Amino acid sequence: MSEFRQDPLSRRWVIVGCDGRAVRPNEFVEATTRHSDLPCPFCAGNEDQTPPAVATHSANGSGHWTVRVVRNKYPALTTEQPPCPTCQPLETNPAQGQATGFGCHEVIIESPRHVASLSELTDLEVETTFRAYRDRIRELKAEGRYQYVQIFKNVGAAAGASLEHVHSQLIALPGVPEVLRQELAASDDYFREHRRPLLPDLIAKEEAEQSRVVAQTANFIAFCPYASRFPYEVWLAPRRHQPRYEDVQTGELGELSRLAREIVGCMERAVGPTAYTAFLHTLPFDMPAYDHYHWHIEIFPRLTKVAGFEWGTGCFINPFLPETAAAHLRTSLSPSS
Amino acid sequence: MSEFRQDPLSRRWVIVGCDGRAVRPNEFVEATTRHSDLPCPFCAGNEDQTPPAVATHSANGSGHWTVRVVRNKYPALTTEQPPCPTCQPLETNPAQGQATGFGCHEVIIESPRHVASLSELTDLEVETTFRAYRDRIRELKAEGRYQYVQIFKNVGAAAGASLEHVHSQLIALPGVPEVLRQELAASDDYFREHRRPLLPDLIAKEEAEQSRVVAQTANFIAFCPYASRFPYEVWLAPRRHQPRYEDVQTGELGELSRLAREIVGCMERAVGPTAYTAFLHTLPFDMPAYDHYHWHIEIFPRLTKVAGFEWGTGCFINPFLPETAAAHLRTSLSPSS
Repeated sequence: MSEFRQDPLSRRWVIVGCDGRAVRPNEFVEATTRHSDLPCPFCAGNEDQTPPAVATHSANGSGHWTVRVVRNKYPALTTEQPPCPTCQPLETNPAQGQATGFGCHEVIIESPRHVASLSELTDLEVETTFRAYRDRIRELKAEGRYQYVQIFKNVGAAAGASLEHVHSQLIALPGVPEVLRQELAASDDYFREHRRPLLPDLIAKEEAEQSRVVAQTANFIAFCPYASRFPYEVWLAPRRHQPRYEDVQTGELGELSRLAREIVGCMERAVGPTAYTAFLHTLPFDMPAYDHYHWHIEIFPRLTKVAGFEWGTGCFINPFLPETAAAHLRTSLSPSS
Repeated sequence: MSEFRQDPLSRRWVIVGCDGRAVRPNEFVEATTRHSDLPCPFCAGNEDQTPPAVATHSANGSGHWTVRVVRNKYPALTTEQPPCPTCQPLETNPAQGQATGFGCHEVIIESPRHVASLSELTDLEVETTFRAYRDRIRELKAEGRYQYVQIFKNVGAAAGASLEHVHSQLIALPGVPEVLRQELAASDDYFREHRRPLLPDLIAKEEAEQSRVVAQTANFIAFCPYASRFPYEVWLAPRRHQPRYEDVQTGELGELSRLAREIVGCMERAVGPTAYTAFLHTLPFDMPAYDHYHWHIEIFPRLTKVAGFEWGTGCFINPFLPETAAAHLRTSLSPSS
């Protein structure tokens, strides 16, 4: 028996728990193979195959880089064209529905070694990656010409990755994108009514209830959201209210990054090797009135295909209850956590 | 050089024309093969492998069926649980964010023959399919307990199809889904300002400009929308204003269905055999105040993967300009059209 559930933050509806669908026959067999004869431009020693580094983190004291941030060789947006002063890209009701492709598109190479998943990073690499995210957001914010930086991660061909070597991307945008706008509106409505931020209240409820919690540390929580769009979707967030990712304390980056790595690892142990998507949502720049927003990371393995119903309606069909997913993920945590 | 474009109907933003990305290296090779030893439950002779037919169209006078509509064996929603009187699924701000999984989920089997694509249907089969859509919408509307019927089509594993045999699906919903809600709001804003319906005005502009038009018949048009999310995305719509698909005249079904088949066929000739998604958008039931809405069909091949940026922002990256796609599709039309 399925049910409709609404996510309070995005206001998205999902249909969850139509269990028969989880085991329905599938006559297609998919195979993804790496075309290994292409040299990897992200491996140590091939630095001349990428555009020059925007930032290099040499965290191990050896002089070799741990994490490199480079411009995307095939950028979706560039600073070659200036932003037009009169057009407002990404606004709901702009004066005109067109704008120059002004923005910035970078790649965060998370290790000099040719590994594919966040779960394969060392302590030092994963922490340096999460610091690199923070530092690039701070630097791009300081440039004063962007309104939002979207950090995201595509792992595996099914998730849209074109290269296997472990990496994330960021796109700095001249406006606030729609999905953020919806979350900000829902957060604002909640704050006006309750005088408390929405997502921290949700997190407190999840902590009290425990059924959807996957793991907790002193300062962070990982849980399967009530209205998960996808099987094994997990959100990662600070337990105390914090609007902006760029305000994460250096002392907390190790704890956060190790939890993120652990979540990806237990997802991979639970469902097998899988493509996955991850992205950060944080308060856009210059929006102090929305300080009730709460940054978080959304991660989901690409097990189901987004099909015509989802595209036509915006409502997702998730055969798998998040309570079931969380229980399975908890049993897949590594013994040390 | 890319640019931002906004779709006037959905208000979605896209980044189009980042040409380098169209040819960026991809080290993954994907293969999809049909697992042919499973018997096909949709083929003629295997009718006992599906739930009983809801409707059977025997259009060729032979007594054999041309198109069969059956309940989905693995339904996302059912009528087993009644709708709860107090909860409003799919509303933006409902009193509660949960509702029973009340609805109806059916499969439209479009041919007794084991073919995979709309482009392989006969004249009779494709016209009967489009009549079956119309008749089921009318019948489900008459039941008085649904607010919207989403008709959609997943072809190929990459588009979410689990069975190869040519079919569409419908899900009757107890509320109006978000994507429709957004289109209705944009249509309404436009109508209040201009006293004319939005999409017919856009279509008139496309007809005047021609650069994005793929094909036109006496009553229908196929064009690549200005802010296409995906390469080779095509919209099909009546040229004269018509809010509801269920009001299509029987005499126009042949013209419409042959144009739809031609568009899918020329898409397949242009890009090669491909998975694709299609869905219908039509005015929800009991919304006469929105009679300015205009029904249409959206079709897109699954050539690009939806990745972290799109999930995080709601803004799509389309490397391919719709003007380029339309020109290519026009050269791929069959000689007779």
